[in-house]
Order: sequence, then structure tokens, then C-alpha cells
Amino acid sequence: MLRSATVRILRAPATCRAASTSRFVRIVEVGPRDGLQNEKTVVSPDVKVELINRLQAAGLPTIEAGSFVSPKWVPQMAGTDDILRRITHSSATKYPVLVPNSKGLTNLLDLLKSSPTPLTDEIAVFTAPSESFSKANTNCTVAESLERLSHVVQVAQDNGLRVRGYVSTVITCPYEGRIEPHAVREVAKALLDMGCYEVSLGDTTGAGTPQTILEMLNAVQQHVDASKLAAHWHDTCGTAIANVMAALSAGIRVVDSSVAGLGGCPYSPGATGNVATEDVVHVLHGDGWETGVDMSKLAATGDWISRELGRPNESRAGRAWLAKRARESATPPGPRARL
Amino acid sequence: MLRSATVRILRAPATCRAASTSRFVRIVEVGPRDGLQNEKTVVSPDVKVELINRLQAAGLPTIEAGSFVSPKWVPQMAGTDDILRRITHSSATKYPVLVPNSKGLTNLLDLLKSSPTPLTDEIAVFTAPSESFSKANTNCTVAESLERLSHVVQVAQDNGLRVRGYVSTVITCPYEGRIEPHAVREVAKALLDMGCYEVSLGDTTGAGTPQTILEMLNAVQQHVDASKLAAHWHDTCGTAIANVMAALSAGIRVVDSSVAGLGGCPYSPGATGNVATEDVVHVLHGDGWETGVDMSKLAATGDWISRELGRPNESRAGRAWLAKRARESATPPGPRARL
Repeated sequence: MLRSATVRILRAPATCRAASTSRFVRIVEVGPRDGLQNEKTVVSPDVKVELINRLQAAGLPTIEAGSFVSPKWVPQMAGTDDILRRITHSSATKYPVLVPNSKGLTNLLDLLKSSPTPLTDEIAVFTAPSESFSKANTNCTVAESLERLSHVVQVAQDNGLRVRGYVSTVITCPYEGRIEPHAVREVAKALLDMGCYEVSLGDTTGAGTPQTILEMLNAVQQHVDASKLAAHWHDTCGTAIANVMAALSAGIRVVDSSVAGLGGCPYSPGATGNVATEDVVHVLHGDGWETGVDMSKLAATGDWISRELGRPNESRAGRAWLAKRARESATPPGPRARL
Repeated sequence: MLRSATVRILRAPATCRAASTSRFVRIVEVGPRDGLQNEKTVVSPDVKVELINRLQAAGLPTIEAGSFVSPKWVPQMAGTDDILRRITHSSATKYPVLVPNSKGLTNLLDLLKSSPTPLTDEIAVFTAPSESFSKANTNCTVAESLERLSHVVQVAQDNGLRVRGYVSTVITCPYEGRIEPHAVREVAKALLDMGCYEVSLGDTTGAGTPQTILEMLNAVQQHVDASKLAAHWHDTCGTAIANVMAALSAGIRVVDSSVAGLGGCPYSPGATGNVATEDVVHVLHGDGWETGVDMSKLAATGDWISRELGRPNESRAGRAWLAKRARESATPPGPRARL
């Protein structure tokens, strides 16, 4: 049972950077949650804390910090309460956590109430337009999933938390194949109607190409304004950056991504990693968009966490950036060195 | 000294597939040349022959077969004459070879004259808009490079060969940084004026983003029609597929790519591999373009050559395709197997 109570939360800054310029794209860093959750290697709480602190120092405005899911099902997410307590909180940064159900929200609210300092003011919930996917992941129909989430969103809001909604499998579903764009639209609209401030559309199978992404977005935007939508593309087939550009052309200004492309080992069959934050930031900056992210610190963070996980750095831009830095530091620094 | 003589060559098919539909994109497979040339591992002639034959069987309409460059400088390209003799020639396929200078052309013409069967009817030449790059790679100015190439093109045409021109470093140069778009335009125009049938614009540092690519293309297209241009993008920073989409939006219908992203180990500093053919074909087919390429055969070829080289398969679409096939083949095939 969820309790409606006043909890200590981080308030949103009075002025939002996203509103400061029409060329601003807000990056939602999902590496510590969606990324690490799908890696085979489980990293220590110390590493998770350092990852989030480094991402904050690199200027990421939103960092998904973890998940209030049972560690029995997702051992990679164990200890999110501890992580939230230990990270160095910045008032300019959002630290949403995924809350799959009422039980997770209860646990989070208990934590928030017990904390002498604010820990987070935002949660994320998820559903999907596919009946088969919903059945397999949450053991209920799409309608039942929305009904349950509606209750979670209501209680979260009663406790001063804002809620972000995820829609998974917006292009294809592993069980059903192609998803009809109008089905995505209905689920996205339902999430906004129940109180989500934004809906992140997830091409979680990475099957989208610019044209299919635009067809889906066109359908969703018949009922939902672009300002309420985020692009969450996986780079399974190498199309994610092209799909980010397609989303921008449709007016979307929020992009989810994962440092070093965390979220699925690239050389495992069926790997479906998130698009790498470094790749997103690189192409956005190259095309004249602003993100507020320091590419140098971001690339160093991607390199570091890849080593911690013992897996290749899956960001091409990150690798290229680091190689460039290595070449530059190997060059004699000016005339004196050449004497 | 070059000799003007009649040589046995493959003639172009009477009807060109590219003209059959406005939704056709011609893929120029550069893996056996631009790809292998930049791999550390040198593969045997047998492997090169099998690679080209597999690419032909996968439906690639143009396969760059090798280079008539001194093996002292590029050991990976040794034995291109042998390769040309041993591959299974298809009349529907073009097998251009890179010819860096008059000496290379003389060697090729000698080969063609000595062959009882036609081996190729096309060469490729290359230059760059950057003075520093030209000096470092060909030890001459851009103007001198164009003057030399003009002679090569003339003799090639006198011998019934058609010529494709490459322009390297169209976005940035490793020595000079940003390249002015008008400099690319002048070099591209010069190559066409001297007789090249097509000019491939090479973002060989992979620094381009859709906007910088379009700015360059806009400048070039002030003097050159899109039908004379090809997109040759490297995926150093993960932008190549987005840049392919940008090129298509500018009217370009020819894309150079390299199976498995051959051409630079991804985990070496400064690696600058070509965009993977599998990734290009995947996004094009997904967006409703035709290529004539069989994705299944192509992905299998990328997997095979990656193993031969002992390096990761750098095509995300290729890996995803193979993983999907592996999952499907692991599934019991129909009701009978379920009994």
C-alpha cells in the first residue's frame, strides 16, 4: 500500500536550461540504469556512484540513477537506495529512478522520507503498446498495465514527484514484429493523460530507420505535442544517430542515450545497446546544437566505465575523441620541445 | 611511359540497374581495396578472391578489386593482377582498380593486354583539396596532382577504360583541419572535366556531420550535378549512416561502403574505417530504397572476412542480422518438431 506523505525532494531549478535556446537538446543519460541493467557484469556501488558523479561533472542535465526493482529479478540494480544516498547531488541535475510498480514506489518513498537531505524528485514508469511484450514483462494486458501505472503516477504526484513515462517497442516487438504507430500513440497519450510530464518513445529493438521512425512520430504527434516527447533509440543496427536526426527534424528536443553505449555487449547475439551518449553529443555539437555536455569529460567517463566492465567502448565518437587526445598529448608541446 | 593500345575489357551492360528505378541506390563496395588496404593483417590472395566472389554473389554491382600501387608502399595490395585473373567475372559487375599514377596504369594495361579474357574496364584515381595532404601523400601540389591525373585519365580513356575520381579529406584534413567546401568543388569539377564519369567525395577523416556534409554538397552541387557524385563516408565518429541519409536528401544515389566496416581496426587510436556495407544496405532497405543486395549473403560475408582477419565484425546491422538468424535456426522448425 502506498502512503501519501510529504517527502524531501530536489526541486527543479527555477530556470530550465532547455528553455534558454531553441538550439538546445536535453540529453537524458540512461547508462547507470538502462545501460548497466543490461550488462552481464555487475559493478560495485562504488563504481555506480563514481559513474553518476562523473556524468554530472560532464554536464549531463538528467541522469537516471537506478531502479527500484527487486534485485531477485535485476541483480544489476541492487542498492539503488544506497546509490541515491551516496552520490554528490547537484541542484542543476535530475536523478530519476525507474519504478516498475507500487511496491517499488513504496520503497522509494520510504527512502525519501528517511533521508535528511533531498535525493530525487522524479521517477520513471514504463509500458509498451504490444500485448505480447506486456504479458511477458509485466504479466498483464496493456490496459491493465496502464491502469496499474495510473495508480503509481497518482501516488507519486501526491508525494511531490514528477513522472516520466517510457513506451518500449515502438517500432517492432520481439514477439509480435511490427507495431502499429497508432498503438504507440494511444499508449503515449494515456501516459500523458495520467500525469507524466514527458513520454520517451523507445525503439528498444533498434529496428527503426529514419522513415519508420518518422511514420511513428507522425502518428503520435497527431495527438501529442513534440515538446512532450523524447527519443530513446537503440543502436542495434547502426541506425540510431540517423534516427536521432529524424527525431530532431520532427521537433523533438530530448534524447535518451547511454555513455559508452552501455546496455548489451556488442558481440553477443541479439545485443541491443542504447545509442552512445558520446555519439549523440558529437553529432549534435557538429550540427550546431547545444547540450551543455563537456565532450572531453564524457569521453573519459565512457572509457573508464568500459574498462570497469571489461568490455569494449562502444562509442565511436568517444574512441575517436580519446585517440585524438592521445595523439595530441604525444606531440611535442611547442618550439621548446623541438630544440 | 604509357602505351595507347586496344585491350580486352569488360563492357558495361546494355541496361544499367541504376536507371531502372528512382528508388535505386548503387553501392560501390570498397572493402577489398580501401578496406583491406587499411587493415593491419595481410590476407592471402585466396581470401581476396573469395571475398570478391562472395560480394559479387551477394549482388554488389561494383566491387573495387584492388590497387596497382607498389607493394613496397602498400603490401596489403600486392597481387592485384593475380586477383583480377582469378576472380569469377560477372558481366553484371564492375571491378574497378585503383591506379595512383602512370606507372600503375602501365602495369594494368600490360596485364589487360596479356589476358585472353576481359578483366576490368574501369580504374579509379584519387586526389584531395588539401595542399598539405597532397604533399604528404603524393609529394606534389593539388594543381600538380590534377595535371598528372589528367594524363592518366587520358591514356586510360584512350585504352577504353572508364575512370572514377576520388576526392579525399572533403570535410577535414589531418594536417590542415577544416577544408573549405569551394576547394572540394574545384577539385571535383576538375576531375569531371578531365573525363572522370563520377566523383566520389570522401570524408576520409569521418569528421562530417549531416549539416557539414550538406554544406559541402551544396557548394559542390553549384557546379556539379548530383548524378555525377558519390558519397564515401567513414564512420570514425558514428555519423556515417546519418551522413548517408543527408547525401540521399541532396539527390546523391551512389554510396561507397566496406563490408564489415573493413578499413581500420576500431580499437586502434585514430582508426577511420569505412562505413559498413551491411549498415548502409540495412538502412536503405528499411527506408524503402533498392540496392539489389542480398542482406543475408552480405552479412555472412562480413562475418567470414572478419574471422579471416581475426578482428571484430564492425557492422552493427551485420551482427544483428546474424544474431537473428542464429536465434531463428535455434527455434524448432514448425509443428513437427514440437511433437
